[in-house]
Amino acid sequence: MLTFVSMTTKGPSKMPEALTLHEYARSGNCYKIRLTAALLGIPLARREYDIEKGETRTPSFLANINANGRIPVLQVGTRFLPESNAACHYLAHGSALIPADRFDQADMLRWMSWEQYNHEPNVGTLRFWYGWIGEANLSELQRANLPAKRAAGLAALELMDAHLATRGFFVADRPTIADIALYAYTHVCEDGLYELALYPNIQSWLARIAALPGYIGIDD
Amino acid sequence: MLTFVSMTTKGPSKMPEALTLHEYARSGNCYKIRLTAALLGIPLARREYDIEKGETRTPSFLANINANGRIPVLQVGTRFLPESNAACHYLAHGSALIPADRFDQADMLRWMSWEQYNHEPNVGTLRFWYGWIGEANLSELQRANLPAKRAAGLAALELMDAHLATRGFFVADRPTIADIALYAYTHVCEDGLYELALYPNIQSWLARIAALPGYIGIDD
Repeated sequence: MLTFVSMTTKGPSKMPEALTLHEYARSGNCYKIRLTAALLGIPLARREYDIEKGETRTPSFLANINANGRIPVLQVGTRFLPESNAACHYLAHGSALIPADRFDQADMLRWMSWEQYNHEPNVGTLRFWYGWIGEANLSELQRANLPAKRAAGLAALELMDAHLATRGFFVADRPTIADIALYAYTHVCEDGLYELALYPNIQSWLARIAALPGYIGIDD
Repeated sequence: MLTFVSMTTKGPSKMPEALTLHEYARSGNCYKIRLTAALLGIPLARREYDIEKGETRTPSFLANINANGRIPVLQVGTRFLPESNAACHYLAHGSALIPADRFDQADMLRWMSWEQYNHEPNVGTLRFWYGWIGEANLSELQRANLPAKRAAGLAALELMDAHLATRGFFVADRPTIADIALYAYTHVCEDGLYELALYPNIQSWLARIAALPGYIGIDD
């Protein structure tokens, strides 16, 4: 693995503390962290929670793991780090998955913010609504929000496709954790009834990510 | 200014290129960037857009400034950096507003992700709905989303207040851009009919931010 990491003088930093991912494995946000760890060859213990049974809202979870009641949380020794993008950043610190250049680093965070604000709540959420809850079981409020979320998800995918028309990766022409963050829900967007066939540049980019040495799938 | 920057051996990096903030000044997301720049003594040109007149959705804006049709965008020379948190990160690179420690750095990004996902869409959005659109003019969909957004905003403020019960700042016991990101919409949350009086720890923290050397207000 890591031919692209060998392109830099810096490899991934050594992990001084044991890492455990508190997760729901099929969540794209959790997969981001596993994919980052796999590409960097970092071992990760895993602990699964059933979000549909409310296992991340128990008093014990809220008191000890994440007061926000959500997974993923990356446990680093005895400390807990919620938020998928923060966990990817922790793992990739000092590796080629984070560019060294000041503007590129900020531009990577720009795409990761955009993913959480404009992409995941539309592309990721519709995957959950159709694939987990089921169209027939959507609440009245979910149903009311569906057209706006669909439109925002389509706009997000179009924006990605246009950006990738002239680039191999999102930032600095090499894979970064911004690509990993965007890959997670994009590559399974058809679960939310989006059509990848409409986005040829996204399709080529998905293939480039899946070809990275060390790559693992969401169900691996 | 910058007594806290003098606590580190690193000052802010020199800015090799001219900086222009494309903004709507009263937006909390834009204020984050101005506040970061002010605390670090970085000069920033400003260009105002009227979001209510759709000035960030014109073909020219979409083609040249941000394909996502939103402000803020930090212009760095001839390059454009959307997303408030990315712009703050660019400005604060190498300064004491970003901790050097690997975990602390990720923890800072954790709070900034949380702000964009759990805080701004609820605390910030209700400020816009009540303060700009007006309660009587809300759309049916906005009205339907109001109870869930109110509940999520209250939960976000409670989580912040609990976190600050034992800490002076969000991360590493010193001000970082996570505090700035969270300050922006929290200090004006009463515009969205939240009550700061309910959150004594938040109030003390707001006062600590406002006392930082170089501080500017949202209307300055």
